[in-house]
Amino acid sequence: MTKRVVLAYSGGLDTSVAIGWIAAETGAEVICVAADVGQGGEDMNEIRQRALDCGAVESVVLDLKTEFAQDFCLPALRANALYLERYPLVSALSRPVIAKHLALAAQKFGADTVAHGCTGKGNDQVRFEVGIGAIAPELDVIAPVRDSGMTRDKAIQFAEDKGLPIDQSKRSPYSVDQNFWGRAVETGFLEDPWNAPIEDLYSYTSDPAVAREPDDVVISFVDGVPTAIDGRPVTVLEAILELNKRAGAQGVGRLDMVEDRLVGIKSREVYEAPGAIALITAHQELEDLTVERDVRRFKFSVEQRWTELVYDGLWFSPLRSALDAFVDSSQRHVTGDIRLRLHGGKAVATGRRGEGSLYDFELATYDTGDTFDQTLAKGFVQLWGLPSRIAARREQRLAK
Amino acid sequence: MTKRVVLAYSGGLDTSVAIGWIAAETGAEVICVAADVGQGGEDMNEIRQRALDCGAVESVVLDLKTEFAQDFCLPALRANALYLERYPLVSALSRPVIAKHLALAAQKFGADTVAHGCTGKGNDQVRFEVGIGAIAPELDVIAPVRDSGMTRDKAIQFAEDKGLPIDQSKRSPYSVDQNFWGRAVETGFLEDPWNAPIEDLYSYTSDPAVAREPDDVVISFVDGVPTAIDGRPVTVLEAILELNKRAGAQGVGRLDMVEDRLVGIKSREVYEAPGAIALITAHQELEDLTVERDVRRFKFSVEQRWTELVYDGLWFSPLRSALDAFVDSSQRHVTGDIRLRLHGGKAVATGRRGEGSLYDFELATYDTGDTFDQTLAKGFVQLWGLPSRIAARREQRLAK
Amino acid sequence: MTKRVVLAYSGGLDTSVAIGWIAAETGAEVICVAADVGQGGEDMNEIRQRALDCGAVESVVLDLKTEFAQDFCLPALRANALYLERYPLVSALSRPVIAKHLALAAQKFGADTVAHGCTGKGNDQVRFEVGIGAIAPELDVIAPVRDSGMTRDKAIQFAEDKGLPIDQSKRSPYSVDQNFWGRAVETGFLEDPWNAPIEDLYSYTSDPAVAREPDDVVISFVDGVPTAIDGRPVTVLEAILELNKRAGAQGVGRLDMVEDRLVGIKSREVYEAPGAIALITAHQELEDLTVERDVRRFKFSVEQRWTELVYDGLWFSPLRSALDAFVDSSQRHVTGDIRLRLHGGKAVATGRRGEGSLYDFELATYDTGDTFDQTLAKGFVQLWGLPSRIAARREQRLAK
Amino acid sequence: MTKRVVLAYSGGLDTSVAIGWIAAETGAEVICVAADVGQGGEDMNEIRQRALDCGAVESVVLDLKTEFAQDFCLPALRANALYLERYPLVSALSRPVIAKHLALAAQKFGADTVAHGCTGKGNDQVRFEVGIGAIAPELDVIAPVRDSGMTRDKAIQFAEDKGLPIDQSKRSPYSVDQNFWGRAVETGFLEDPWNAPIEDLYSYTSDPAVAREPDDVVISFVDGVPTAIDGRPVTVLEAILELNKRAGAQGVGRLDMVEDRLVGIKSREVYEAPGAIALITAHQELEDLTVERDVRRFKFSVEQRWTELVYDGLWFSPLRSALDAFVDSSQRHVTGDIRLRLHGGKAVATGRRGEGSLYDFELATYDTGDTFDQTLAKGFVQLWGLPSRIAARREQRLAK
Repeated sequence: MTKRVVLAYSGGLDTSVAIGWIAAETGAEVICVAADVGQGGEDMNEIRQRALDCGAVESVVLDLKTEFAQDFCLPALRANALYLERYPLVSALSRPVIAKHLALAAQKFGADTVAHGCTGKGNDQVRFEVGIGAIAPELDVIAPVRDSGMTRDKAIQFAEDKGLPIDQSKRSPYSVDQNFWGRAVETGFLEDPWNAPIEDLYSYTSDPAVAREPDDVVISFVDGVPTAIDGRPVTVLEAILELNKRAGAQGVGRLDMVEDRLVGIKSREVYEAPGAIALITAHQELEDLTVERDVRRFKFSVEQRWTELVYDGLWFSPLRSALDAFVDSSQRHVTGDIRLRLHGGKAVATGRRGEGSLYDFELATYDTGDTFDQTLAKGFVQLWGLPSRIAARREQRLAK
Repeated sequence: MTKRVVLAYSGGLDTSVAIGWIAAETGAEVICVAADVGQGGEDMNEIRQRALDCGAVESVVLDLKTEFAQDFCLPALRANALYLERYPLVSALSRPVIAKHLALAAQKFGADTVAHGCTGKGNDQVRFEVGIGAIAPELDVIAPVRDSGMTRDKAIQFAEDKGLPIDQSKRSPYSVDQNFWGRAVETGFLEDPWNAPIEDLYSYTSDPAVAREPDDVVISFVDGVPTAIDGRPVTVLEAILELNKRAGAQGVGRLDMVEDRLVGIKSREVYEAPGAIALITAHQELEDLTVERDVRRFKFSVEQRWTELVYDGLWFSPLRSALDAFVDSSQRHVTGDIRLRLHGGKAVATGRRGEGSLYDFELATYDTGDTFDQTLAKGFVQLWGLPSRIAARREQRLAK
Repeated sequence: MTKRVVLAYSGGLDTSVAIGWIAAETGAEVICVAADVGQGGEDMNEIRQRALDCGAVESVVLDLKTEFAQDFCLPALRANALYLERYPLVSALSRPVIAKHLALAAQKFGADTVAHGCTGKGNDQVRFEVGIGAIAPELDVIAPVRDSGMTRDKAIQFAEDKGLPIDQSKRSPYSVDQNFWGRAVETGFLEDPWNAPIEDLYSYTSDPAVAREPDDVVISFVDGVPTAIDGRPVTVLEAILELNKRAGAQGVGRLDMVEDRLVGIKSREVYEAPGAIALITAHQELEDLTVERDVRRFKFSVEQRWTELVYDGLWFSPLRSALDAFVDSSQRHVTGDIRLRLHGGKAVATGRRGEGSLYDFELATYDTGDTFDQTLAKGFVQLWGLPSRIAARREQRLAK
Repeated sequence: MTKRVVLAYSGGLDTSVAIGWIAAETGAEVICVAADVGQGGEDMNEIRQRALDCGAVESVVLDLKTEFAQDFCLPALRANALYLERYPLVSALSRPVIAKHLALAAQKFGADTVAHGCTGKGNDQVRFEVGIGAIAPELDVIAPVRDSGMTRDKAIQFAEDKGLPIDQSKRSPYSVDQNFWGRAVETGFLEDPWNAPIEDLYSYTSDPAVAREPDDVVISFVDGVPTAIDGRPVTVLEAILELNKRAGAQGVGRLDMVEDRLVGIKSREVYEAPGAIALITAHQELEDLTVERDVRRFKFSVEQRWTELVYDGLWFSPLRSALDAFVDSSQRHVTGDIRLRLHGGKAVATGRRGEGSLYDFELATYDTGDTFDQTLAKGFVQLWGLPSRIAARREQRLAK
């Protein structure tokens, strides 16, 4: 039987050329799988057809939007996942959902190999390959761009030689990856980290410096899940899409940073993620109101580990499951409303309330109605500081 | 010999009354110590004189501004100290420097007791008492407001009875603590966390929503210490003061949050800290460029612990010293320039460069000159994902 | 209606006197609750009767052994809970189960207060009071020994005056707390930490220095729960009891340490916990075989936090629940057998196997059958070390 | 000029063959460097000569024992470095000191390449290569066994063909790596982790099951450095050697475990490290006495990260320096004596004392002289448990 390879297909030059390239190199039949994770742009049907035109024996388009929102973005939101305390894991979240469906497609179509178009110096190769291996460890993975010398020049030549239906004329100067959780942009002049980004890079967000009216939005959560916006019930997907629009219109969620890639180098990245940033901001605020102190303090370390793990391509690892179990437990009673003001590139909470609140007015107030028993404080302070005091006595003793 | 008590003196009603109150309760002579940590407001000489007018046997004013900037704000900056990832420890930093000098004053003036005017439900009582105990464990501490029923009503009555020179007419509706690292405001209507702050609360920052020109500033660091602004050499104190002005004028550094107090309750706090936020933002950006990945990842946990410890009143603990030793080591080569755009309430880095940079253009670029050897990636990815793959094989084996 | 107080009753002098003492001080009726957590010693029925003889209006004995094993010792085992990496939380585990039932008894008997006999310098007061407050926050707690001056001398005098049926003649020189998870001993000469423990202190363990035949035992676990010993199915309680006997006979589980109490002081403690140490040793070994590397590494921090939290009296906190959710997830596939050799005071694993194993002979072997692809290593090593290499280049560059 | 390669030379078959193999493959001159890290066995001069006899152009033997003890074992001791809480990093510590001197030798002898004899599935390849790259990033590294097919069979053939002076007849069935910090053994039948180790595997330790008299030893530390044994001043190296002898004679320090290698697989390892285990045990005990609680608690996470980092080959990373700065600070006042009883395979502390002690008899005692003010406890306990109590009230409120 002819070998079959499932290829992660984007519709662009590299993966279009890869169809024939893989066939030529391996003699295998190529099955293309294109995933819709809300990246927008081209019609998915055209992409599907192009794969066939380029020689694929099968071509499927998968609508992963709801699964991506529910099973990938939502856990990230509940974990307040911000790599280096800033980047909301745009590509790092979409890769595992795609990897999962590539592996399933390979099993369905009887392929023993999955192919992707990543280079060897990015993070996405790791996320694809480790993800596939963790779903279907028996599969091989190949990467023509990285492993068999399919450079851009050779790809263009190949496309011309074969007459592939790829239009290189409208090629963007930017290298972009996007989905509804956010958008990542790389381009030549940004490789000098002293250069500032320019307005033209952005697509999800308006210029925050332009004067406009603020937009106040109330986001409601039940047990850490966003369930309503301004009182209207929403799914997680709808919450993200609406906030992309409203927060994006206020310039919220632009990020410009130098980050540590898993492969050991620092790179400069520009992101925009208006909905993700607005949701995470609201969620953090609600946690401040509803999560008990010790949980909140320990959860920071869980959040950091969760984020590094997912950034590092280990979504399908046992550790992610265990960390998520912690997060799930912590989200009990993260229930209430956050009023955010979206304006001038910022999402700022201006109010918080809700049935999960641990804020106790009667303990907190300095006015009439104060129920806090201040006589307890003296003993607390004395014993709290006792280890420091004993250490200080040692210093005095040894200084003599 | 008459007992002597050193009192932390602010010039306000509570501590002015406490002079006579303590004398009456204990028969001790009261020595007032007022610390200048850049809180501004009243002339320090008037404060000094008022203490004497209220019955103090000695009254001293200490200019702690340089020590506070150098020995307290700078370590906080190098630790990117943001409690709950947001609050830059305004009062939590000034309390230990004051506590230290209260203890020294007690030793100098032959007092065996230190007094402060804190209540029993805040954090500052802890910071004062633990700090004093860690410097001079032999000292007693008393807190008339907390421990001997000196309520506000009784204090006002006492002031009237004794004819103390306290003018209650200009009393602010806001309870404020401020120094040059920031400003904290509490007031009645904020005790409902659903209420938004109003413009009138703020004093260090202008309204970020007002249209104005952005201000681009270049902050230079050597080994994690800010040393120049726009090329002009500055001390740490000068850096803070200049950025308070410039970032404050752009509305940078406003914070509105619900936080976990050490005494076990949640409280709602409004802060403004323009200089601190601008400096920490710049410092974090420079660390992203200059600090090796594993150090950066571990430093997050050090930063969190450092911040909690200082928030919790344990500045003078052996753990703070040990964490600072880690931070000091990490700051080697945190050397370079950050260009910040201050505008619309945000401090956003738009450029970073410097001799400490670990960003390697030749490894990072996708253009000509790329020196990254992509053939190494395949082996890396395979072994990186091997544990997940072995775990997946177990799942398959046991699912049979 | 007469107020009622539920008293944690042990049958000893202090709590026997407390019955009348509380009645005299508060006018309340006292209901005694004695808990059987496997402490052995006196017949529980005699204890029950003595409470009545000393004036209690009700006296109940609760058999908490199964609940204690299942809901308290088992989570501790799965968390490998060893405070300061050594002490298996003997008293720290029994206090919360007792606190829970004191609170339930108060609700059942219509009491609004719970009383305990702890002093003010130990950990147990915290565990009782915080536990009760977390189950039934409306209850008051009183502690006659700590808060109302019921010293030992006064207690003896009180017992004599009232003719209470307490026999002080057989009083042990040791202060002991014990249950089936372990035994804690304090006594005067141990308060000098340079003094070695003597053989007479021990009751659960034989002298490990005496020559005897080793005892090899195979402990089987399913998902982290001990389910069989030497092939015979056991409950958790049976596993602990059998291993107490067998490991105790070999002198396993003696501990002598200086530990940090929650109240801020260091104390010297001697423990013996043969079953607990044998079970934790076996469980750790099985985790080494069955838990994926990243989970194992992160679990150490979870274990430490879990242990400190429970030691510090916070069993019923939201954080313990969240940490347990992590632990539960990690225990999936901790399934297999550990052969332990119990001998000479040591429990040493000599074999491990099981269906949850992640040990892959074909990857690990250096003999025929090796499936590990060594060509992958070069790339892995290069990229793994790349950040260190880039940092080294910076050192060279700046050293010039 | 002829290229030169520095080869890490052990005197065994693999590296003896590698001399000619590398010369044949690359045309380079081979310089052999043999390091003495206390591995014992063959005379180092014979090893030096054998390298020349096998074709090396230069051959040097470096005595690294003092440097290894002082700069590698001592930091490990102060960090209580036990991988997976058990393995004291035997090979993981010697590799970096050797890597450092290989790099220095390459610079001295004008070589541009370093060679080692490691395979591709162990940890040592990583430790060598990353270490060399972090000292001299310009050097290349080659590994004939791993990268150019120098299998054992081919090596034996090569040795016979060339008449190399290697005696294969006395080849041990065990694969051993040893230095004075410990000894690691692998062999075929241990690759089934259900098989128990046999007595014949061990060389540093006597059978702990044999009856013998205990050996009580007093180890003194100053600031975390062992400085005397039984009152006689010792260097770190002397301390290790003496304790290897005395603890080894009592069977202390045998380890049998399944561990997670960096390359992603689990392996079964048997170690013996009598001196290391005795010293670490004593050091931990002294820390329990002398290190403040919060430092001790945080240090556990530092120790774990330190150990993983060094195990993972990253000795020369900036993170190790930063962690060591923390450890150094923590060791201030780790000064005092520990009396250990070495017996029956165990090293057990039976006494601790010293000028760095934080144990305060007057606070700890329950006898006359108690200075602990128990009235402080009530307030402490109440506020300590307040967050749990507030969370419990929420549960009650929401359960209605």
